[in-house]
Amino acid sequence: MIMTELIEKKKNGERLTREEIDAIIDGYCKNGIPDYQMSALLMAICFRGMTEEETFHLTESMLNSGKTLDLSSISGIKCDKHSTGGVGDKTSLALCPLVASLGVKVAKMSGRGLGFTGGTLDKLESIPGMRVNLSPSEFFETVKKVGMAIVGQSAELVPADKKLYALRDVTSTVDSIPLIASSIMSKKLASGSDCILLDVKYGKGAFMPTKEKAEELAKEMVRIGTHFGKDTRAEITSMEQPLGLAIGNILEVQEAIDTLHGKGPKDFVDLLLESGTTMLLQAKLYEDAKKARKAIEANLENGKAFHVFMEFVKAQGGDVSYIENPEKFPKAIYAFPIKSLKSGYVKSIDAMDLGLISMELGAGREKKEDVIDPTAGIVLEKKVGDVVNKGDLLMTLYTERANKRDLVSRALGDFEFSDAETSPLPVIEESIRMEGDAFIIEKD
Amino acid sequence: MIMTELIEKKKNGERLTREEIDAIIDGYCKNGIPDYQMSALLMAICFRGMTEEETFHLTESMLNSGKTLDLSSISGIKCDKHSTGGVGDKTSLALCPLVASLGVKVAKMSGRGLGFTGGTLDKLESIPGMRVNLSPSEFFETVKKVGMAIVGQSAELVPADKKLYALRDVTSTVDSIPLIASSIMSKKLASGSDCILLDVKYGKGAFMPTKEKAEELAKEMVRIGTHFGKDTRAEITSMEQPLGLAIGNILEVQEAIDTLHGKGPKDFVDLLLESGTTMLLQAKLYEDAKKARKAIEANLENGKAFHVFMEFVKAQGGDVSYIENPEKFPKAIYAFPIKSLKSGYVKSIDAMDLGLISMELGAGREKKEDVIDPTAGIVLEKKVGDVVNKGDLLMTLYTERANKRDLVSRALGDFEFSDAETSPLPVIEESIRMEGDAFIIEKD
Repeated sequence: MIMTELIEKKKNGERLTREEIDAIIDGYCKNGIPDYQMSALLMAICFRGMTEEETFHLTESMLNSGKTLDLSSISGIKCDKHSTGGVGDKTSLALCPLVASLGVKVAKMSGRGLGFTGGTLDKLESIPGMRVNLSPSEFFETVKKVGMAIVGQSAELVPADKKLYALRDVTSTVDSIPLIASSIMSKKLASGSDCILLDVKYGKGAFMPTKEKAEELAKEMVRIGTHFGKDTRAEITSMEQPLGLAIGNILEVQEAIDTLHGKGPKDFVDLLLESGTTMLLQAKLYEDAKKARKAIEANLENGKAFHVFMEFVKAQGGDVSYIENPEKFPKAIYAFPIKSLKSGYVKSIDAMDLGLISMELGAGREKKEDVIDPTAGIVLEKKVGDVVNKGDLLMTLYTERANKRDLVSRALGDFEFSDAETSPLPVIEESIRMEGDAFIIEKD
Repeated sequence: MIMTELIEKKKNGERLTREEIDAIIDGYCKNGIPDYQMSALLMAICFRGMTEEETFHLTESMLNSGKTLDLSSISGIKCDKHSTGGVGDKTSLALCPLVASLGVKVAKMSGRGLGFTGGTLDKLESIPGMRVNLSPSEFFETVKKVGMAIVGQSAELVPADKKLYALRDVTSTVDSIPLIASSIMSKKLASGSDCILLDVKYGKGAFMPTKEKAEELAKEMVRIGTHFGKDTRAEITSMEQPLGLAIGNILEVQEAIDTLHGKGPKDFVDLLLESGTTMLLQAKLYEDAKKARKAIEANLENGKAFHVFMEFVKAQGGDVSYIENPEKFPKAIYAFPIKSLKSGYVKSIDAMDLGLISMELGAGREKKEDVIDPTAGIVLEKKVGDVVNKGDLLMTLYTERANKRDLVSRALGDFEFSDAETSPLPVIEESIRMEGDAFIIEKD
């Protein structure tokens, strides 16, 4: 009976207390509150929102639903990063070794891809032998020895989120800022790092449709992280076009390797320099942003970041011969090069549709049970701002699946051209952090 | 997958099509749509509402979820009445025999009471032998022979409503005008009468808190009934104090009998005269309201309405010796007369709290499984507008349950007094019907 009163309260726009939120999350985890009551409450939250206090309490209740990692046995400042997900987002693969090469400790838990966005775990598993299900002691030892490790989300951490997210997914109650923020932040807090860098993407190929919504989510998450005593910062980044040139699992690993050799695409490198600098400041390894950035630039060029990546792959069981010689990775059976039918400047590239095409090529999952083809995906040759002549190669589609040639004309339609000159799109639009109760927003 | 899109549509304030609503109701009845998706949709409807068209489609989908009654074998115009429920509402017991005595055919399905409002079936069943579960042929024969019959809602009619209402009840999604209106009207339409008179109550002891909300619900229901070709009218009536003097099952049957002998309390008699007149006009037995009212007044006085009530009870198996001699009904073990501690004019009587007290005395159900004590309840001696001297009897509580004496002081607190003269409360505030697309609202 009490649950109907709590639903009614939220429906009427009243605040739920800490005790009420605790009772809801606890009751739901223990199956005392049925799905149909929880989904009604979630829908009411979608309409009424939650106050800061309610969101803190929800995050804490979720956090308390399972175990939390204690990383104190790892010396140094531990930094975590999280991206809300996008098309071609291989940032963790390059950023984690980059900052680890400068002394940041990264003990990261990642997820798998679903829909048009890829997942870091799937990308890592495209490296033969790579294990993402380390035991806790293996995980800790790897971070201590290499400076970083990336594993799958443990089911013991925040079980409430797993159950809630599955329900939100089938009841159209995903797009609520407090629900998204508490879901992400409860997992980040449970993972035990001292600092958290959030990459909140917006645009066609991202979860948040607009920059304003992304900023709202970023602020909510920074507020939560800061409230719980973590140095939490966020970057608002554009997903109006795919990040870098590669979309797909092996293709993105290869691009990450190129980038760690100092040969990355400009937008991706820009993101790494900016994010890496922020993480060095968060970890208090540098006080001066310019010096931090110089160190990041150096390690991207001098092979030190690449070396950490090699050690990381080796420590988690991966065959480093593929990392040393990325040509060794298997290639997809079919390759469809797509040439431009027009001349002009690239005005836009539909990231979301390319993400969906990439999924159809085999690089992603439509349903959780789907199996990924690691070789499938897309490699772009042009990005927004580039000049294109008729007949120039725009991109190549890779797939193991027969009868996917009809995707060529659809992919071609994802490029828009303009006669007038266009500018490359910025990647990081804003950086957000808190000082006291105030948000500091720096526009790039 | 499609259900999540429909939830999303409604959540975004878009309209659902007839086909979509059909698919939802059909899928839900066949268990293809789980409760947790339906409750999320219901909550979205609570926030977004439904258009007239959507509400018509929802009503029709619910109607089509089960059988409908074909009353065409009963000659004459069949009229149904429905009350949204209140405290002391014994209207059906007296109104149905009253209009039947003048030629209206009443084939009525009623419900049981829950919470602070009573149900017609429970009141009827307090008459020894009375059966409310007639077979369809018995039901039809009784209406043909006596002019009226009252039975329980058939599970074969509008099964969708039964399932939906159970879900709404536990997910705080009851108070949505289109959901309430389609729930009531689908059942009324399925019951097959030609005319429908709706009594929409508002105030402390009613489902609708304000007159405005009651008017909104009444209009929605009149709109639906009219759309489906039924002469549908509504009365907005006040539940700011209990209706009549008796609350409780046998007590209300006794009051109905008194009223059919021409000795009813003024507010209840006023309601019967007004509603009866409307039903005679709806049934086209009279064209002139004044003449109809005269006929109603006459049959309340001359015993003809009482005679139909006797025949009705006899036809449904009830022991008419109780109707002939209401003193024969059993009495509660405990009676607590409550005398006034003040002198003054009665300013207000808290109908809802008296309904709740009556439930605690044993006259109602807190949960569906609870068993009712037919003798339990309250008999008022004073109503709003009456003058009271200190020591005057205000009411008597009746119960079979020990240890209910503490309800005396609570019941006493439900009476408010004023030094200045107060006026009796009107019962019917407005009558609502449609002519063409326009509402005709007559204020009493």
